[in-house]
Amino acid sequence: MKYFSIITILALSLGFTTLVVAGDSTDNAPQDTQSRLKYTEFNRIGNPADVLEVKEDSARALKSGEVRVRVLASPINPSNLLQIAGKYGVQPVLPSTPGSEGVGRVLETSAEVNHLTVGQLVLLVGGGTWRDEIVAPASGFLPLPNLGPLDSSMIEQLSMSAVNPITALLMLTSFVDLKEGQWIVQSAANSAVGSYVIQLAKQRGIKTINVVRREGLADDLIAKGADVVLIDGPDLAAQIAIATDNAPVVLALDAVGGDTYTRLANSLGYGGTLVAFGVLSGKPAILNTGMTIFKDLRTRGFWLAKWYETADMQAKQAAFGEIIPLIAMGVLKADVDSRFTVDEIKQAVSRAAQGGRNGKVLIVPNAD
Amino acid sequence: MKYFSIITILALSLGFTTLVVAGDSTDNAPQDTQSRLKYTEFNRIGNPADVLEVKEDSARALKSGEVRVRVLASPINPSNLLQIAGKYGVQPVLPSTPGSEGVGRVLETSAEVNHLTVGQLVLLVGGGTWRDEIVAPASGFLPLPNLGPLDSSMIEQLSMSAVNPITALLMLTSFVDLKEGQWIVQSAANSAVGSYVIQLAKQRGIKTINVVRREGLADDLIAKGADVVLIDGPDLAAQIAIATDNAPVVLALDAVGGDTYTRLANSLGYGGTLVAFGVLSGKPAILNTGMTIFKDLRTRGFWLAKWYETADMQAKQAAFGEIIPLIAMGVLKADVDSRFTVDEIKQAVSRAAQGGRNGKVLIVPNAD
Repeated sequence: MKYFSIITILALSLGFTTLVVAGDSTDNAPQDTQSRLKYTEFNRIGNPADVLEVKEDSARALKSGEVRVRVLASPINPSNLLQIAGKYGVQPVLPSTPGSEGVGRVLETSAEVNHLTVGQLVLLVGGGTWRDEIVAPASGFLPLPNLGPLDSSMIEQLSMSAVNPITALLMLTSFVDLKEGQWIVQSAANSAVGSYVIQLAKQRGIKTINVVRREGLADDLIAKGADVVLIDGPDLAAQIAIATDNAPVVLALDAVGGDTYTRLANSLGYGGTLVAFGVLSGKPAILNTGMTIFKDLRTRGFWLAKWYETADMQAKQAAFGEIIPLIAMGVLKADVDSRFTVDEIKQAVSRAAQGGRNGKVLIVPNAD
Repeated sequence: MKYFSIITILALSLGFTTLVVAGDSTDNAPQDTQSRLKYTEFNRIGNPADVLEVKEDSARALKSGEVRVRVLASPINPSNLLQIAGKYGVQPVLPSTPGSEGVGRVLETSAEVNHLTVGQLVLLVGGGTWRDEIVAPASGFLPLPNLGPLDSSMIEQLSMSAVNPITALLMLTSFVDLKEGQWIVQSAANSAVGSYVIQLAKQRGIKTINVVRREGLADDLIAKGADVVLIDGPDLAAQIAIATDNAPVVLALDAVGGDTYTRLANSLGYGGTLVAFGVLSGKPAILNTGMTIFKDLRTRGFWLAKWYETADMQAKQAAFGEIIPLIAMGVLKADVDSRFTVDEIKQAVSRAAQGGRNGKVLIVPNAD
């Protein structure tokens, strides 16, 4: 907790800090307001690479309470692609500007804004982050605490803090009171969420069984802290029983659905909980409902967007207050597969939709 | 609550009452200890009508702490048949004596027993109730409070109190904090549990959608307090939405599994809970796991045997303290389809396994 006091962590989450981040001054100068700024938009639901458009706009003067923020990094998350494709829990209002998180630097503030200062790093919260600059009310940005000089890789890590690490944390803490030494299992363990689950579980002394769908991933996951890595297949429950020496698995996290979901259900111990948070297979699952009776199996779902909508400020403070320091200290990190500018959005989403990646695709609008 | 004080209710559940039931003296006389007593047993797992045997034994003298109880009525529950057929959560130890609840009258007590008296009515708790007489430690019997003179139909109703009404009560109270005016849905609504659910929900102002698999049952269920009765089918969720005018359904209770389970899942509102407690269809269900995410759908299972094993005395007191008075007052009741003696056990279980019944099959060993 080198860089953090509890005060700054709470202040961070409340959005009341006035800390100015030192260093990295090369992009501190306000952008020429006459320049054309690029942003991403879609006017119809469909395959992201087909429907996303790059548009240009002139910078406009700030209104009262607004700030201008240069976007430094913003990831492409699976939920973004699902939303553009119309496969999400809520349909976007068209035209829509995609992207849901990131890190930016304050370029300009209007007179009425007193908790953000020029040069400061902020988390972008809410929609429309795949763009060069954002002009929005100051409340749409969470100031980061003073982390000292940050290189671009740490800025990238912080740009991924609001979706995947928070998802991993909440799934580990919201459903089961996990105790040190207990076993959990997760599918799509090589995903970004999977990687955060491994790291957060390791930190808590929780043992992880990590299910993936191809060979060649075990070394990397073990290096991250995975206890067991298994290849998905019809014998998954039997593999798990062997790996844990029949110790009960108390929590399963599933991003795949279909057969994988069914196998995870079969691998749970008495009273175990299966949490779905994605359906990468696009398929429904077969559930032995007799097993829910005799094994007291519980199934739940987790949807981060709903948490952001309904959780109170204290819960959000607690979650960010736990995640941001861990990222800043390098305890929590995600791999980056590739970086694209806003101009390259079609290549970026095509890459993000490909299997076989080992990391996140980032939009880095102002890359050197 | 005419016949009950809170003291007798608590005492009832603790098994410490010394109340003697008045009236109905015809069967008060101790049985001739030289007579042959019939009981039911099975030595192998299989179809109940095939594997059940009627055996005879002589009455034996009581050991210290034991009592002799004449069985007056004991129902055949679906769980009994599943257990005999090897389709239950635990396998019976063979040879096994079936039957899991009933009402009896104390015929004889050993000197050390001071909370049960000859002539008293008791609930039979535990296994082996399909027999003429039970000789067992006094702790295996729950004394009923003084209910005044009871006719045989009330004794029959009380004989069914420990399984189905407790199941209905616990399913209504353990998973969702139901509020007056909310909607719930149940399958197999014409079952004994279904009928208790209707009556207990009505008493609480909870509205019930009752799903059955054949025509001709609606009038009877409406008379019991059902708000809506629907025939199961592919359009079940749509039928339910029309019946409730799109009000959210907060709890679904399913004894069928398979397609019915899937349809109940589809009919739940945001945050709804689906509780399985039986799998009459014998089929697994298809679950749209994306729906568990975006609708925050929760699934659970309920198994009464586990509750009896794990619930503390206070919870059991509360449950019996609520159910017994309601049965005694006639608020809660189940239909009786037919009555058989121990000798007729094969006909009895055959009848109990038949579809199209409208009531419970009872073993009434000492029927006039």
